[in-house]
Amino acid sequence: MEAAIQTMVKTFQTSSKGKDSLSGKEFQKLVQTQLSNILSDTESAKAVKEMKEGLDTNKDGKVSFQEFMSLVGYIGGMLSQQRSSETASTH
Amino acid sequence: MEAAIQTMVKTFQTSSKGKDSLSGKEFQKLVQTQLSNILSDTESAKAVKEMKEGLDTNKDGKVSFQEFMSLVGYIGGMLSQQRSSETASTH
Repeated sequence: MEAAIQTMVKTFQTSSKGKDSLSGKEFQKLVQTQLSNILSDTESAKAVKEMKEGLDTNKDGKVSFQEFMSLVGYIGGMLSQQRSSETASTH
Repeated sequence: MEAAIQTMVKTFQTSSKGKDSLSGKEFQKLVQTQLSNILSDTESAKAVKEMKEGLDTNKDGKVSFQEFMSLVGYIGGMLSQQRSSETASTH
């Protein structure tokens, strides 16, 4: 679990080049390189831009680490439901 | 990154025995077995109980997946700052 959290911190910091937040371009690259198997439409710049605007709660045009973590929470929730329905269908 | 998110979902679902939320006991066991290297006071039942109450935003006495993810976000933020200060001190 700890290694998993470390991985997310490292992924964010590598993508943001050590800054506290991701620019639009950096966010797009992260989504396309890291989350293309989980999220749909990651090839669409428009879809990724809309996702970024949805995350950018303080409207500073960037994605902070906490805003990024809410995306991770959303994805985790999606996977969690997938796993629960898979487990239910195998019983 | 995807594997890291899957790991968190699996850790939560194993601890909650497939339920949507963790009981107080299940949360305590998860914190003590998975997060003892990152969080302090995990051996103190009182400290873990207070942490749980802080996370339990809907006050149902349990920790939902999204409430759990806010703990992960908090820990990630802590590690992120640690890494930034380590990187700054080595330059």
